[in-house]
Amino acid sequence: MHDIQRVETGRPVNPGAEKWLNVETPVLDHGFIRLVDYMGGDVDIENAARISYGGGTRKVSETRGLLRYLMRNDHTSPFEMVDLKFHQKMPVFVARQWVRHRTASLNEYSARYSVVKDEFYMPEPSVLSVQATNNKQGRGGAISPEMAEEVQNRLRKSFEDSHELYRWLLDPEDGPGLAREIARLPLSVAVYTEWYWKSNLHNILHLLKLRTDPHAQYEIREHANAMANVVKDAVPITWEAFEDYKINSMSITGPEKEVLVDLIARQGVIADADQIQALAEENGLTNKREINELKNKFKDLGIMK
Amino acid sequence: MHDIQRVETGRPVNPGAEKWLNVETPVLDHGFIRLVDYMGGDVDIENAARISYGGGTRKVSETRGLLRYLMRNDHTSPFEMVDLKFHQKMPVFVARQWVRHRTASLNEYSARYSVVKDEFYMPEPSVLSVQATNNKQGRGGAISPEMAEEVQNRLRKSFEDSHELYRWLLDPEDGPGLAREIARLPLSVAVYTEWYWKSNLHNILHLLKLRTDPHAQYEIREHANAMANVVKDAVPITWEAFEDYKINSMSITGPEKEVLVDLIARQGVIADADQIQALAEENGLTNKREINELKNKFKDLGIMK
Amino acid sequence: MHDIQRVETGRPVNPGAEKWLNVETPVLDHGFIRLVDYMGGDVDIENAARISYGGGTRKVSETRGLLRYLMRNDHTSPFEMVDLKFHQKMPVFVARQWVRHRTASLNEYSARYSVVKDEFYMPEPSVLSVQATNNKQGRGGAISPEMAEEVQNRLRKSFEDSHELYRWLLDPEDGPGLAREIARLPLSVAVYTEWYWKSNLHNILHLLKLRTDPHAQYEIREHANAMANVVKDAVPITWEAFEDYKINSMSITGPEKEVLVDLIARQGVIADADQIQALAEENGLTNKREINELKNKFKDLGIMK
Amino acid sequence: MHDIQRVETGRPVNPGAEKWLNVETPVLDHGFIRLVDYMGGDVDIENAARISYGGGTRKVSETRGLLRYLMRNDHTSPFEMVDLKFHQKMPVFVARQWVRHRTASLNEYSARYSVVKDEFYMPEPSVLSVQATNNKQGRGGAISPEMAEEVQNRLRKSFEDSHELYRWLLDPEDGPGLAREIARLPLSVAVYTEWYWKSNLHNILHLLKLRTDPHAQYEIREHANAMANVVKDAVPITWEAFEDYKINSMSITGPEKEVLVDLIARQGVIADADQIQALAEENGLTNKREINELKNKFKDLGIMK
Repeated sequence: MHDIQRVETGRPVNPGAEKWLNVETPVLDHGFIRLVDYMGGDVDIENAARISYGGGTRKVSETRGLLRYLMRNDHTSPFEMVDLKFHQKMPVFVARQWVRHRTASLNEYSARYSVVKDEFYMPEPSVLSVQATNNKQGRGGAISPEMAEEVQNRLRKSFEDSHELYRWLLDPEDGPGLAREIARLPLSVAVYTEWYWKSNLHNILHLLKLRTDPHAQYEIREHANAMANVVKDAVPITWEAFEDYKINSMSITGPEKEVLVDLIARQGVIADADQIQALAEENGLTNKREINELKNKFKDLGIMK
Repeated sequence: MHDIQRVETGRPVNPGAEKWLNVETPVLDHGFIRLVDYMGGDVDIENAARISYGGGTRKVSETRGLLRYLMRNDHTSPFEMVDLKFHQKMPVFVARQWVRHRTASLNEYSARYSVVKDEFYMPEPSVLSVQATNNKQGRGGAISPEMAEEVQNRLRKSFEDSHELYRWLLDPEDGPGLAREIARLPLSVAVYTEWYWKSNLHNILHLLKLRTDPHAQYEIREHANAMANVVKDAVPITWEAFEDYKINSMSITGPEKEVLVDLIARQGVIADADQIQALAEENGLTNKREINELKNKFKDLGIMK
Repeated sequence: MHDIQRVETGRPVNPGAEKWLNVETPVLDHGFIRLVDYMGGDVDIENAARISYGGGTRKVSETRGLLRYLMRNDHTSPFEMVDLKFHQKMPVFVARQWVRHRTASLNEYSARYSVVKDEFYMPEPSVLSVQATNNKQGRGGAISPEMAEEVQNRLRKSFEDSHELYRWLLDPEDGPGLAREIARLPLSVAVYTEWYWKSNLHNILHLLKLRTDPHAQYEIREHANAMANVVKDAVPITWEAFEDYKINSMSITGPEKEVLVDLIARQGVIADADQIQALAEENGLTNKREINELKNKFKDLGIMK
Repeated sequence: MHDIQRVETGRPVNPGAEKWLNVETPVLDHGFIRLVDYMGGDVDIENAARISYGGGTRKVSETRGLLRYLMRNDHTSPFEMVDLKFHQKMPVFVARQWVRHRTASLNEYSARYSVVKDEFYMPEPSVLSVQATNNKQGRGGAISPEMAEEVQNRLRKSFEDSHELYRWLLDPEDGPGLAREIARLPLSVAVYTEWYWKSNLHNILHLLKLRTDPHAQYEIREHANAMANVVKDAVPITWEAFEDYKINSMSITGPEKEVLVDLIARQGVIADADQIQALAEENGLTNKREINELKNKFKDLGIMK
């Protein structure tokens, strides 16, 4: 952890984010993520949302209720009011996936200006998996320890050879002294790069939903998970809503709904409002509005009379 | 409908979109929507997506299967490859909601340059509803025909007075001859404006999902519905997938899922894979991958053994 | 000025921005701007830029030199690393111009949820100008004091009448009790609205360049100028560069350059490098790189041998 | 060139763009650019702009005058109304620079799904330059033919070795049969990738301004130049304005202006309006508004009385 100076500010201060400032969390073998700066927190999302309601309207009684309501109903704009700025270090092939999320600002280490260090991503044996047969972009089972060692040896040799060639290409004495921007050609997509990256909470959550998903490539998932740990503490109420309504939710498509409705009708699944109310409460659902939404869905499914 | 000239092109041509070119569909009392230009169609979404698969991979057998797969799994980028450009005319208060969708290009009639016509939105009696009591931003029941007439008369008078003042402010002979940009101050948010508006299909569908929703204000819903009619014909396969997976889908939140699982367990709802397969087919689900997804969700819900 | 609590933070603190926090600056007759939150300052722009240079490169000796270099050469991405969040209140017709700048986040007071106050923009007599004759979107000379009074009286009456009708439309006892979203129809574009608005410094500077320009409408210029006052203090080094290279610069088009070169050749304007160096220093240009750029332009114009 | 079918359309057809449809222009050793689709042309920019002027205003007499006016005055939104969609193939290190332009849609060949071909960028001897000494990110002089051959041999060996290792990693018989997403680790940033890429004309011109600049890396410049050839034909009037006002223009900074004014004053450069008019016409400036702008700048510089 870097040393940080603590100074007074008149801005909103967010204790959950403060504790991550300048903390460098390692990711993969040479990478890391570090929170550099932040703006706002759960309360500031609420403040932005409340301006819509003006003076003359009912009180949505507390932050948690409002934030959960916003998340559940895809009222996304107030979540744009929080920003997080990170310093990240990751292999180039991960960086290329990460920048597909375009609503973000970034400044990256330039291999045109600066010499690239001899740091390449070497996968652990446990993540050296064969091609999945049922999924063109996935991993299947692990390979044998002996084969894993062989793979690592060959990769290591390849990385070493390419960085050696890179240094020779740069060398004005024993080599041609090429411009850095062209000498980098032999470096592989496993080489590490780093950047400052800033985005707003709405877009960060969207990225995390896609990149913490089991279908995302392991290496980007590790980076997304490390970022998720920071976000979770920075906006705990938002995070809880995000888990309840986005991560742990299940989308029943139109056609699937018809099947479910049919099945429920045939099997005579039926409950009245009081039973559903009781069941909801037993399962920890206490928000009145949320229970009503549940009842409406159950009516829709033919479960509730 | 404007006359249009038909000319040869080497571009992909989309018959469903062609038939809407330059057709002016009325919306509300003075507004309209008109398709000005388009780029691409269902097949072009497929072409964009297929570049990801390169040469060496399996064939996703047909356009429909692929497009539905993309829509179901939120692979949104290929849908950005289709653009639609519209000419729209709508009241200012609707235009202000419409521009909240920022990923679009637009050129609007300028009240700084040009004189604003005497056209204001006058709601039909049937849409003059009282304030909803259970929803701070909604409409409740209709008002009486007599009251509706009174409302229309007072609104008409207000619109007339304000446009009369506007014309006096502009008048260099009998009035002060004010600059147009300041003379517009008395014009109400019911006055009509028009613009060229272009966006890509992914962002258009997102807009339509939010603005055709029953919670959207009636007047913007009318505009969204009129646009939806064009989009439906322009990309019929995409539209079907959009309806199945986005419009008619139901999101079961994490907490709701727990309740549903609990209920299903208590009521002993149970079916085996064959029964579910049969039920799915009866309900028109034929895509193998989609049936597998259904089975996985039913396992998750405790319905399938 | 609202009271603010001062708390310790580990984040970068920017004294120039701190002093504006929660300070409400009046703009026009009922509007204001207030800095709600900020992220970063001049030094953080530098930090983001320096990551591009990595460890092994020369030192760009100080913040000012680097920031001016970035601004002069349109290296815009580091300026995206600073955010400012404002609370603003402005008339609807100004708000409609402001949102044309799409790369920003905003939450606006909702006239669907809440009742709109009786606050309309009444222009001062001094800004009641006739239509410019040489510019379709500009203002010409002022009108007479008597006419100005007449204009104000008629506008005041119009605003009062429309807000009275609005209140009647909302009234469930003496009027129809219409839904707020439809009762707002008579309100004019001079009515005030408010919002939280956040953007990054790069986009804010772009907005300020366009909206502080003399061709911008007076009313939006007032808002842009008020924001400029905050930005100037928040990032003083960036602001100076912005003035030198963007606001006070002159773009000589290709065709104009030919004329200038021709004229300079005919009039025998000529100077050698030393004279230009001396002239540059006399005029306060001390940065070596900047003087070289000047010499190159002068060579290009045929001024320097 | 691919075969294309010519079909009738009611859309605006742009002959300059039509002739590039499906024409594959080689770029670097294995790359190319190919126009896949387009929307609009010069006239459609005009149509979008004219909606701002409505019915009641003066006629800006012709397309060229209007488009040049828009370009000169940074009225950028009408240029967003034209879209171009390309199929491009380029090395990964070029692709990484290209995606820094975020306002675009893209679908890229996926090395997670598909096997990457043995195609790497091998620079021509003429572009193998040493590191510039005065510019940390530039190239200096060429290297000797013998050294160039040595460089090419070593690069070729490196590319071959890495692709051989890649194939072994993928091989389920003689190698471990790793998942494609992880087997790609040894592939260098010189390997070729391809994508569909679509953006609007405003953003394309911005990209071309930055990436055809002599300071851009040679390899991305080649791609930008190839795209520029298409754009030039697709929107010839816009392109001419772009060259006159953006590419061939010179920005005189505030401090530089002071020096120039000082110099002009000392050397007694002076001309009256008629002389400037004559000089402008001699140099091909005929547009009245543009000549007035020139005179205003010359007044500002102290050249014109």
